Amino acid sequence: MNIAIVGVGLIGGSIGIRLKETDFCDRIIGVEKNESNQKKALQLGLVDEFLPLDEALKQCKIIVLTIPVDAIMAVLPGILDKLTDQVVIDMGSTKTNILQLIADHPNRGRYVAAHPMAGTEYSGPEAAVAGLFKGKVMVYVEAFKSDEDAFELADALTDQLEMKSSFMNADEHDMHTAYVSHISHLTSFALALTVLEKEKSQGRIFELAGSGFQSTVRLAKSSPDMWTPIFKQNRTNVLEVLEEHIHQLQNLYNKLEKEDYEGLHRLIKKSNKIKRIIK
Amino acid sequence: MNIAIVGVGLIGGSIGIRLKETDFCDRIIGVEKNESNQKKALQLGLVDEFLPLDEALKQCKIIVLTIPVDAIMAVLPGILDKLTDQVVIDMGSTKTNILQLIADHPNRGRYVAAHPMAGTEYSGPEAAVAGLFKGKVMVYVEAFKSDEDAFELADALTDQLEMKSSFMNADEHDMHTAYVSHISHLTSFALALTVLEKEKSQGRIFELAGSGFQSTVRLAKSSPDMWTPIFKQNRTNVLEVLEEHIHQLQNLYNKLEKEDYEGLHRLIKKSNKIKRIIK
Repeated sequence: MNIAIVGVGLIGGSIGIRLKETDFCDRIIGVEKNESNQKKALQLGLVDEFLPLDEALKQCKIIVLTIPVDAIMAVLPGILDKLTDQVVIDMGSTKTNILQLIADHPNRGRYVAAHPMAGTEYSGPEAAVAGLFKGKVMVYVEAFKSDEDAFELADALTDQLEMKSSFMNADEHDMHTAYVSHISHLTSFALALTVLEKEKSQGRIFELAGSGFQSTVRLAKSSPDMWTPIFKQNRTNVLEVLEEHIHQLQNLYNKLEKEDYEGLHRLIKKSNKIKRIIK
Repeated sequence: MNIAIVGVGLIGGSIGIRLKETDFCDRIIGVEKNESNQKKALQLGLVDEFLPLDEALKQCKIIVLTIPVDAIMAVLPGILDKLTDQVVIDMGSTKTNILQLIADHPNRGRYVAAHPMAGTEYSGPEAAVAGLFKGKVMVYVEAFKSDEDAFELADALTDQLEMKSSFMNADEHDMHTAYVSHISHLTSFALALTVLEKEKSQGRIFELAGSGFQSTVRLAKSSPDMWTPIFKQNRTNVLEVLEEHIHQLQNLYNKLEKEDYEGLHRLIKKSNKIKRIIK
């Protein structure tokens, strides 16, 4: 069995690296428009060869889409048109729009919507790492709409990646990712912009930056090509959580501005409840 | 030579652990109101014994203040009143108000204002760790106002902690820490509050939380007893940076709200310049 990885960057490349450690498939075929990324991916041994999409579809049983979500929207219907017994799995970070787009496609059953809750702030083939997925969660969205055998094949791939699995509907998925992933990126982007702006007049401002700052700002290294489409596809949820987050910041601002230190202390103490959730 | 550590929590306890590895001082004397923390600190071997402050002042050459900044404001003048040839070093995260408070004290020269750019989101004696300071920066503020021998003794302690040193004036220090430390805590507190609020109606929302979320929210575990006084003492700078940060978030919000995806992409790309600064 051959597998096609469409988009050999952080996610696609890391799948390639991991599958090469297993005997899950015979050949790993990359599909990638960017020639420089093709070269890098071959040098790094992320895939065995590159082929045009149509050729890859003919030769592969599994097609994995690891491209930005707007690119998934653009290519998925055309891929479904051409499928016979293959399965196509998208690994995008938003699901509602994608699922609506192909809801009535005659080959809907050959499609599995999945979202690996794994990643780093880096992108491109050089960012691919072995073990990126190990122990992480693969979220399946509307899995019940996939053909039994298509889902089983996707889940076999998830097993090879050493991931756990979880099931959600599309609305729930997109709202939850807005709250626990997309907003984190927006706060990092905004924090980076805030401090970079101040640096212009202050020069040495980053000398004192420690691990706390690094931790809150590191996601600001994330790719705009990947994230702009995510915010676009998940616009309603992202606007909701962003509005709520600005409200919380404004609340902290007001407490400090009015010198209501008891109120400020109370809010910080309330936020400490996050200890219950994160290690 | 004996050293007194006033406040044996994360910072004070970590100094104690490190100094025990060296022959820098004969005895490490803790000063701590909280009896439960005294017991823990002794069990963990962070200090040799606990004494009341006045007794510790008599027996020690160096007095290190590792208590919240409002507590430093409360005790520092009284400590300076009683000093002869000892040196008192405060390790607080804000400096302007503290330095103003004791600017005209006859024993001003015996005081060294220092800020170790090291820490974690944990607090209390259990949070103390060996090597917390290694390779980090100790910022001295208005060091030129300390007596030569007092500064040399403080700097010898910094050497024992295996830290590098840096010099700043108080305004610069407080503004820079607002931008690269205090704001990071505020964004984490607000992010935790945002998601904890949503959890009430959504339940499973944290299931999808990955390393990105953890990274941006981990500072929300920080102690309100430590951070409320920091925001109080650095109120003007913190309000400035918070206002600017809210403005940047609002800007991202507006771009998304108006579906100006080119503008959003441009802002994210601009924020990527943080790569230049952080690893």
